[in-house]
Order: sequence, then structure tokens, then C-alpha cells
Amino acid sequence: MEELSVNHLLGIKYLNEADLQLIFKTADQFKEVINRPIKKVPSLRDLTIANLFFENSTRTRLSFELAEKRLSADVVNFSAASSSVNKGETLIDTVNNILSMKVDMVVMRHPNPGAGVFLSKHIKASVINAGDGAHEHPTQALLDAYSIREQHSNIAGKKVVIVGDILHSRVALSNILALKKLGAEVKVCGPLSLMPKFIETLGVKVEPNLEKALNWCDIANMLRVQNERMDTSYFPNTREYVQQYGVNKSLLSRLEKQITIMHPGPINRGVEITSDVADSEHSIILNQVENGVAVRMAVLYLLASKIKAYAG
Amino acid sequence: MEELSVNHLLGIKYLNEADLQLIFKTADQFKEVINRPIKKVPSLRDLTIANLFFENSTRTRLSFELAEKRLSADVVNFSAASSSVNKGETLIDTVNNILSMKVDMVVMRHPNPGAGVFLSKHIKASVINAGDGAHEHPTQALLDAYSIREQHSNIAGKKVVIVGDILHSRVALSNILALKKLGAEVKVCGPLSLMPKFIETLGVKVEPNLEKALNWCDIANMLRVQNERMDTSYFPNTREYVQQYGVNKSLLSRLEKQITIMHPGPINRGVEITSDVADSEHSIILNQVENGVAVRMAVLYLLASKIKAYAG
Amino acid sequence: MEELSVNHLLGIKYLNEADLQLIFKTADQFKEVINRPIKKVPSLRDLTIANLFFENSTRTRLSFELAEKRLSADVVNFSAASSSVNKGETLIDTVNNILSMKVDMVVMRHPNPGAGVFLSKHIKASVINAGDGAHEHPTQALLDAYSIREQHSNIAGKKVVIVGDILHSRVALSNILALKKLGAEVKVCGPLSLMPKFIETLGVKVEPNLEKALNWCDIANMLRVQNERMDTSYFPNTREYVQQYGVNKSLLSRLEKQITIMHPGPINRGVEITSDVADSEHSIILNQVENGVAVRMAVLYLLASKIKAYAG
Repeated sequence: MEELSVNHLLGIKYLNEADLQLIFKTADQFKEVINRPIKKVPSLRDLTIANLFFENSTRTRLSFELAEKRLSADVVNFSAASSSVNKGETLIDTVNNILSMKVDMVVMRHPNPGAGVFLSKHIKASVINAGDGAHEHPTQALLDAYSIREQHSNIAGKKVVIVGDILHSRVALSNILALKKLGAEVKVCGPLSLMPKFIETLGVKVEPNLEKALNWCDIANMLRVQNERMDTSYFPNTREYVQQYGVNKSLLSRLEKQITIMHPGPINRGVEITSDVADSEHSIILNQVENGVAVRMAVLYLLASKIKAYAG
Repeated sequence: MEELSVNHLLGIKYLNEADLQLIFKTADQFKEVINRPIKKVPSLRDLTIANLFFENSTRTRLSFELAEKRLSADVVNFSAASSSVNKGETLIDTVNNILSMKVDMVVMRHPNPGAGVFLSKHIKASVINAGDGAHEHPTQALLDAYSIREQHSNIAGKKVVIVGDILHSRVALSNILALKKLGAEVKVCGPLSLMPKFIETLGVKVEPNLEKALNWCDIANMLRVQNERMDTSYFPNTREYVQQYGVNKSLLSRLEKQITIMHPGPINRGVEITSDVADSEHSIILNQVENGVAVRMAVLYLLASKIKAYAG
Repeated sequence: MEELSVNHLLGIKYLNEADLQLIFKTADQFKEVINRPIKKVPSLRDLTIANLFFENSTRTRLSFELAEKRLSADVVNFSAASSSVNKGETLIDTVNNILSMKVDMVVMRHPNPGAGVFLSKHIKASVINAGDGAHEHPTQALLDAYSIREQHSNIAGKKVVIVGDILHSRVALSNILALKKLGAEVKVCGPLSLMPKFIETLGVKVEPNLEKALNWCDIANMLRVQNERMDTSYFPNTREYVQQYGVNKSLLSRLEKQITIMHPGPINRGVEITSDVADSEHSIILNQVENGVAVRMAVLYLLASKIKAYAG
């Protein structure tokens, strides 16, 4: 049987192209499953998965939880607000404790870049990074790439522009890494104050003008503007941002071809994109959400196979 | 097989009498189930239900969750405090996202009147309104009516008085609608400043005097006083409220007959009713709570049958 | 079949030695279960357990939840923050409501000493005290004693010192009661201002000097310092506390023999014990956490047998 080259999903950085293709092929099967009236399979029965969310994230947490339950895993949830993190416990103590309780897999969102890598070096359970600060968010990149593959048959040769605050975005970094490994051309577009210094070392070009970027691309992935960062010294104010980097229907109609619009959610309607764009035939935003469950089922399933092989 | 005339439970307003009777008959069967040592049935195995609570409500959320688990459904919970509602996402975005994850049924509590109706127009899943602002709370009215039917054999011809803040109460409105459809006579009693202007168009009479109201009725449903509304300009202060609208043992003993006391909970002991009344043989308050699970199982089961018919 | 002498686990006070030994023997079996690849048993299928946490406690809540799920029980969680306790409801009302929903067992953490006992007198479900104020925390004492038995073959004759804030610690009281019933010798060590007046009536001696206490004992159980109590008038400041009651590697190396270090967690690293002690071969802290799940499975299983006997 084919298997992943890794025991954890810590970042796209650690995966090779065969891993990505294996995840996509597996997700195809689970996508069929979740479109049947009976959406559940017994694959992970008897495994216990802990979802450790040290930052709020309804959407990602819910998507993982559904994926886990549809694989028949046992699920325990744990969020920072109610955790002993508040009592001054260190990350390694929290996790040691959870692992002493014999959890098989850990899905973790954490504000610190590298939290997942740290964890995986100290524990035996399989670790899935559900977002570590401004670093990586690998399952988001996987579901984005999967959605492009579904819409455009394949990814190699496709032109993708990522628009917005590239500097603070884990979605941007993971997307760039995944798309490059899969043979896409990638450009980034956004305020220069929000562009990482060495961005071109990743093999992507900066296109500061949105209309030029959209005319070049097949797919535009519109990053979410983080309200807490807006109107600070290094960020344009909202009105300026909308004028320069917001996508609306009239801009789309001026383009020479029809492009696909993506967004990781939640959308600030009227900021990154207008409502009529979000709800138009250009948008595959809801497909992304649906694919998120299938892709996460695939990742959980493939990593669990490696645990079982180890145990057996 | 008999089935409901609706695909969602948005309000008592949308149900006909046959729907109400079908829910009661079905609840009779589930009430037997939850009084057996083995309280679980496999009816909703393979369905996923999302409980979306945009307002806190331990009691209602827990009752739905137990009903869902005893029907063997998969359950995901989501509450406003931890949700991306805080990130400025609109209701329709939140829900679209959840539905792209292929949830079959949504139980929603929301502060906005009509939130459930709005939802049901935009999504395919079955929607159950678990309270929408001061508008409706249909499962509460169903469990109240079911508890009266259980106690008094039937509802037609029975005299029910609803006491308290009628203006702001979704429990009052849903109760009035259900009881009238089932042939009961209904009066309301409470401060005139808390009485809706057009209350008599619903076919109910206002009786401002509590003792007269109690002497007239078979059943008194004592609404919860919302602490956040008390002692405001349009609300009597607590002492006045207790004097004029609170029920105590000595008042009950002055009545010409024994009446049934109901309360949707949680009780403010010593305000709406005294402790000795709450714990007396007059009170069916705990029966209401127990019946809540059976009635919610019935609603979920009947709506799920319609989904399955559609899918099959 | 052997069974417990009690229907609830309210405190170690109510158990006899045979109960303790029966819990340990049962936990031995569950410890095997949770170290198998398949960690689940169907023993409590069809039982519903409510975890009522009126105080935050990730660790204890998670341990109970895992124990319940590995026994295949249905679990509903309820925490104070989101509960109607905030709406002014009394404890007995909250619980009556939950029990009207036909929950079979209640695991409760509550800030008031005696909350579990109060509950058990008013309801039919089986009650497990998961910590009641500064009073008892029986499952912690059981897992601590079980971990000593595992490490040292038996408990009778062993010398145990409990170090820290004895006055405010439910862990200390429950540990003393359990260890004395099992034939251990127990001393306590800590600031005299944090020593209960009648501590010696429990059959334990006070040893104010930490090094003497450690030289005497086989096992040292280091209580967690509650940050909210530190630096108050009756508490030494942190620096003084660490100097007089903190355990570090150099202190351990001065002792005449190797002793076992325990801690109920979460650790304040550098306060009660240093990191190198916590992670050393002296420490059985993670064993305690692992044993917590096995011991809680045993308690739930044994109490459930009594419910089933009653129902059958």
C-alpha cells in the first residue's frame, strides 16, 4: 500500500509531491463518502484524537471534528480558554499529560510558530499542525490545492495569485509551498509593507497591481484581512485597502477571461471581496469548505495507517 | 406512514393540529424509550446534527444534545463565544460554511427574531428553531403542551393562564399558538407595561389580577423573570412583582380547586414562585424537563424521516 | 461478584479498605485495556454520564471524559461558564433538571465542600466527587495510591510525606485518608500557617523541615502551589517557599536513598519542583496521569454495576 513519507503533518515543507498526490487521491474517495446519505466509515474506530486549540478557530476545529467523527474516531476537545495553560503550565507539560492519557493523534492550533514541530519531537502520538502562528497551516493549503485540482483538472502549469497580507499569513506560506511543489506558477499581490523581505526566494514574483495580477492568473486566492492588524502604522486603512486590493464585480468584468476566486474564510464582505463576487459563479469558496472535511479525513486516515502499522 | 407537513421546525405558527398530535404520539414512544434501562435507539445513526447556539442556554442545549445522542446521531456543538461570529462573519456565511461540511440538521438558538426562517430559505439541511429572540421557542411550547396532555389526558377545553412578561417572551407566544391550535382557552396575566398591544388578536384575554386568573384556570404557566429586564423603567421592581405576580403556598391554598403549576426554568425561587410551590404536588416542572428530551427526540426523528425520504 | 460498599464516590472517608483494593484490582484490568492498540470496551454502552464542572479543570475533566468514552458511555459536558448557574439558579435546580433528563451518573467538581454529598441525598443517579472545594478529591487520592502500589508493590508500611499547603488542599486530605486506610505511614511538611489545626487527629505527624522529611520517606507527594494564594499575608512569598519547600536535584542527591517524587499537576516548574526533578527517574508524574484514566474507568465501572443491579 502507498503511504506518506512522514509520520506527522507539521507543514507542507516536509511533504514531497507524491505525498500531496496520495492525499488528493485519498480525499477523492472520502469526498464520495461524505456525499452519500451515509457519511460515516469505521476506519478510525478505536483511535482517540485530541483537538488542542490554543487559539479560537470555529471553522477549522469543526472541520477536523467532523472529519474525525466521520472516520468513527473518539474525539476529545480542549481549548485554551478552559485549559490549565491559564494556570501557568508549559506546553510540554500540557501535552505530556494528554499523552499519558494515551491519545493516538493530536490536532493542534497554537500561536507559536514551530509549536507542532516541538511537540512531535517529544511525544509518540501523531501530530497534525492546524495552524502555528504566522508559520504554516498545511491542511488549508491542501484543501486549497485540492479545490484547484477539482476545478481545473490539474495544478501543474496553472497560474495562481495570492492577494493580501502575505507577511502575517500562514495560509499564504503553506499555499506557496504546496503550489510550487505541484508545478503551479505563483505570484503574490498586496501592500509592500506586508510583503516578506525574501519572498522571491520561494520562487514567487510580486505583482503590486491587482488588475495586472488578475489578468495574469487563472485563480486568485484572496487572503482574509485580520481586523486586529488593520489601521496600524504598517497597514493601509480599510478604505485604501478596498480600493487597491478589493475585488468587486466590475473589476472582474473588465478582465480578459473568467478567473476562479478562492478565500479561506471567514470573509469580510465588502473588504477582500464584495458579496456579489463571493456568491458568484467565479467563487469556489463553499467547495473549499466541503473539500476541507474530505482532505482532513484523508490526512487523518493516512497518518493513522502509519500508527497502526507501528502498533501491529 | 404519517409525516409532518413541514421540513423544518421554525415556529408553532407553521404547524397544523395534525402535526402537533403526530409529535405527541411519537414522543409517547420515545418517553418509553428513555425510561428503559437502555435509553438509546439507532434511528439517526449516520446523521450529523450541528447545535448552533448564538446565545447561552445550558438547559435547552443539553436537552437537544441528549435527544440527539439517544437517537445515535453524530453531534457537533458550536457556541457564539468561540465562533467566528466574533470575527465579523455574517450569519449566512457561518451557516454556509457549516453546511458545506454536509451537516444534515441544524438546531439554532439566535438573538434575532426570524433567524431560523432566514436560514431555512438559504440552506438544504433541516432547521430547528431553538429560540429566536423574543419571537418563538417551538420545542418549549411542544413540551409544555405535551406535559399538560400527560397530566390532564387532553388539552382541548382546558384553561391555561400564562403569567409574567408576555411582551418579551418567546415562550409565551409559542405556547399561545400551540394551545389555541389544540383547543385550549388561554388567558395572560402580567403588568400592562409588559403586555403586547395586539395580544387579543391571538384569541387570548388579559386578566390583570393574578388571584382571579388562578381561580379561573386549570394550569398556570409561570414565565421566568429576566433579571436583566427587572428594575428598568417599564418593569415593576422585584418586590412589587413578587407581591402582584408571584405564586406562594398561601395563595394556592385560597383557591377553590387544585391547579397545575408549570415553569420553563430556570426558576428564580421566591420571585415567580416560592420554593414550596416549586417542590409541591402542584408542580410538574421536572416532568416538563423530562418530557423535553422525549419531545425533542420526536421532532428530530420526524424531520429526519423527511430528509431520508428525500435522499432515498 | 465483589462490589463496592457504596453507591457513590463522595470521599475516601466513606470507603473501606476492601473498596480500595477492589478499585485497584479493577484498575489493573483497565490499565491493560488502555495499553492495547484497541483501548475501548463496551461496558457502559447505553449509560449517559454528565460531567458537571462548576470550576475549570482541564486535566481532571479530560481524564474522566476519556475514561467514560473508553467504557463506551454517552457523555454530556457542562461547565459553569456557560451554565444557568450564572442566571441565579440553585445547585439543586440545576441538578434536578439534569436528572429529569435521565442521566445515569454525575461527575461533579464544585467549589463548595460537601456539594457531592448534598447532591447524592437528593437524586437517584450515582454521584462521583471530582473535587469539592478544599474538602476531598477522591479519584486523585485513588490514582496516587494506585501509582505508589504500582511502583512499590504495596502500600502498607510505606512512608509518604505530603509537602505544601495542607490547609487548603483537597488532594492532601483525600491522600491522607486513603494512605492511612491502606497502612502507610504519613507525614506532612509545609509552612505552619498552612497546616490545619487538628491535623494530628488524622494520625499524621508534622515535619516542618523538608530535608528531614525527605530523608524519612519513601515517597514525596509535592502539592501544587495555588498562585492565587501566594504572597498573601498567611503565605510565604514565592522565593521563601522555593527555598524552604522546593525540591531540586542537589537536594535529592544529598539524601541517603532514592525516593519517588509525585505531583498532582499542573506543575509550577521551579516552584514545587525543578524541571530536572520533574523529568528525572525519581518522578512518576506521568504514570500518575496515565493511571488516572485506568482508576477512573474502574470507579465508573464498579458504580455502574450497582446501578445495573438496581435496574435489573
